[in-house]
Amino acid sequence: MALAVGLNLRTFIRIRPCKDDTVLINLPNIGTKLSWDVSQLQSLLPSFQDDPQNMEILKNFAGLTDGCKDTESLAVLAFLYLYLSIFGRDLPSVDVVVWSQLPTGAGLGSSAAYCVCLAAAMLTYCGRIADPMREEAKTSRWSQTELDLINQWAFQGEKVIHGNPSGVDNAVGTWGGALQYQSGRITPIERVPMLHILLTNTKVPRSTKVLVAGVKEKLLKFPDIIEPVLSSIHAISQECQRVLKEMTAGLSMDHYSVLEELIDINQHHLNVIGVGHPSLNTICRVTAERGLHSKLTGAGGGGCAVTLLRPDTDHTVVEAVKQELTDCGFQCWETSIGALGVSVHLPSSLTEDAREAFSNL
Amino acid sequence: MALAVGLNLRTFIRIRPCKDDTVLINLPNIGTKLSWDVSQLQSLLPSFQDDPQNMEILKNFAGLTDGCKDTESLAVLAFLYLYLSIFGRDLPSVDVVVWSQLPTGAGLGSSAAYCVCLAAAMLTYCGRIADPMREEAKTSRWSQTELDLINQWAFQGEKVIHGNPSGVDNAVGTWGGALQYQSGRITPIERVPMLHILLTNTKVPRSTKVLVAGVKEKLLKFPDIIEPVLSSIHAISQECQRVLKEMTAGLSMDHYSVLEELIDINQHHLNVIGVGHPSLNTICRVTAERGLHSKLTGAGGGGCAVTLLRPDTDHTVVEAVKQELTDCGFQCWETSIGALGVSVHLPSSLTEDAREAFSNL
Repeated sequence: MALAVGLNLRTFIRIRPCKDDTVLINLPNIGTKLSWDVSQLQSLLPSFQDDPQNMEILKNFAGLTDGCKDTESLAVLAFLYLYLSIFGRDLPSVDVVVWSQLPTGAGLGSSAAYCVCLAAAMLTYCGRIADPMREEAKTSRWSQTELDLINQWAFQGEKVIHGNPSGVDNAVGTWGGALQYQSGRITPIERVPMLHILLTNTKVPRSTKVLVAGVKEKLLKFPDIIEPVLSSIHAISQECQRVLKEMTAGLSMDHYSVLEELIDINQHHLNVIGVGHPSLNTICRVTAERGLHSKLTGAGGGGCAVTLLRPDTDHTVVEAVKQELTDCGFQCWETSIGALGVSVHLPSSLTEDAREAFSNL
Repeated sequence: MALAVGLNLRTFIRIRPCKDDTVLINLPNIGTKLSWDVSQLQSLLPSFQDDPQNMEILKNFAGLTDGCKDTESLAVLAFLYLYLSIFGRDLPSVDVVVWSQLPTGAGLGSSAAYCVCLAAAMLTYCGRIADPMREEAKTSRWSQTELDLINQWAFQGEKVIHGNPSGVDNAVGTWGGALQYQSGRITPIERVPMLHILLTNTKVPRSTKVLVAGVKEKLLKFPDIIEPVLSSIHAISQECQRVLKEMTAGLSMDHYSVLEELIDINQHHLNVIGVGHPSLNTICRVTAERGLHSKLTGAGGGGCAVTLLRPDTDHTVVEAVKQELTDCGFQCWETSIGALGVSVHLPSSLTEDAREAFSNL
């Protein structure tokens, strides 16, 4: 069992009609800016609808060579796939911009956030779900049924990008908060507290596939040693859920202490099953020297670590840790978990950096 | 279950008759040099034999205040206890020197080695066991029955020092090699390979009692998380035994790789159950940076770490690691485990440092 929590590093999409019969996609984070004539896309529809799972059609259209696994190619494929699938016969001329506070390829689910944004924006644009925005609200959300539909389409987009994703990332992106994931089943957790964290990207690339294979190999090699560790990890998830639930009823410093213990134990277990990395251990050591507790997040083997910040953690301590981690060559974000899922924002309610990113286009 | 292995850092005893009716004890490691008249000791016998477990009699005699827990007091108490118990009515005038390559108070069983030496020397001196030395041999050992007796008396000495020892340390000191310890039962392991190691003393003091209590507390707090870890530790011991046995039949580099994996996993588990220490993590990190694998040894919480050295580990690597660890303020010894138990040596077969220590008296 695993717990997945929504991260307050958000991905923003803006979709608006385009006058000159073109479709524009602008992804400033990765420097992608492409456009197609709607008529070109229209001519693609019959063969696409004949076999929507056949990515060759879209690849050929976008001029991508087979086996293209770079971020740009995958982002473009997912966009085309969702655009053609969701809009169907009636392809509109739209101008789409997606900008994210998340780094790509760090195991933080940036592709899922991207797909959730595309699905929500396109489904709303074509009217298959209602625009939830009300005049008085700064931020509005869709109904559960509509969120279900967004999630389903986001999952289709994730499949285009990852082949065989678990579906956890798009679910967290859609619903926010926290989710329990066990043997393929995803269950939302009713209420979770908003926890302040430091997120650190080691920038060490890793392959989830290779890591998962490594865990399986260890389990086969030392079953009596590794199986109990997996069951201990399972128990940590459950204990963590119990504490998170308690915290929504009333936070105490004891809750934080228990979470810190669970973080430490979990990090050791993750090292045992072989998904650790020296760079992640460095983060744990640097933060531990300042009394903070960290663990890897995502698949491990590099990627990111998450450090729990207590309400009573002094700001100078956080700044010192961030400086030290940056000096190690890592990248840090102070953010929170247990954040809201996909929402519609008024432009005035956007964060400073998002407003700036969109105004600079 | 735990594995205990004999360490090739030896403790040497020399016992010889003394002319002037005195008993001399000289412990150069801790700067202790004491003597008593045999007649004084003789007068102590009736009350001692009346109640041998009453340490107050010996404490009063040696002028030790109650609650004296320092190394010297405990060493003197154990000496007096074994001298009076083993020699009984016929107290001889002896000159005893004990010198050790082991540091005291580092969790390496120096007290057990001391007691084994005292028991073996005194039992042989009074003829209760035979002098095993044969002319042609440089090193000789006692029979199994005689070793049993040595071990029993060494355990009595350990009780004087520690109150409630497990008996593992004196058993390893007596038999050498490796032993399995499970719920109070000690079983010698038939054959073990001699493995080259680096032993590093963090010099961080720790209390076994406090550490054991901490583990129990964690187990009560998080039973579903900690119980599987204990069973994984048990499985590591068994796997380790299996590999050690295989190694006696023929070493391969694969055996070392498995031992290294087990060392790493075990070290993580020991951190999980709360017997780690930042200084021990430093040792693990410093050695890992050179491709070597380390774990704490003994009770943890400080004390010593053991680093496995492979037959193909370059000497310059070991030297570099030793230098780095010494720079951290630690103390290192290159030695081996799976060493011989208590033995009689010809003076000519003593190690250089032992010969020097005894000649400087």
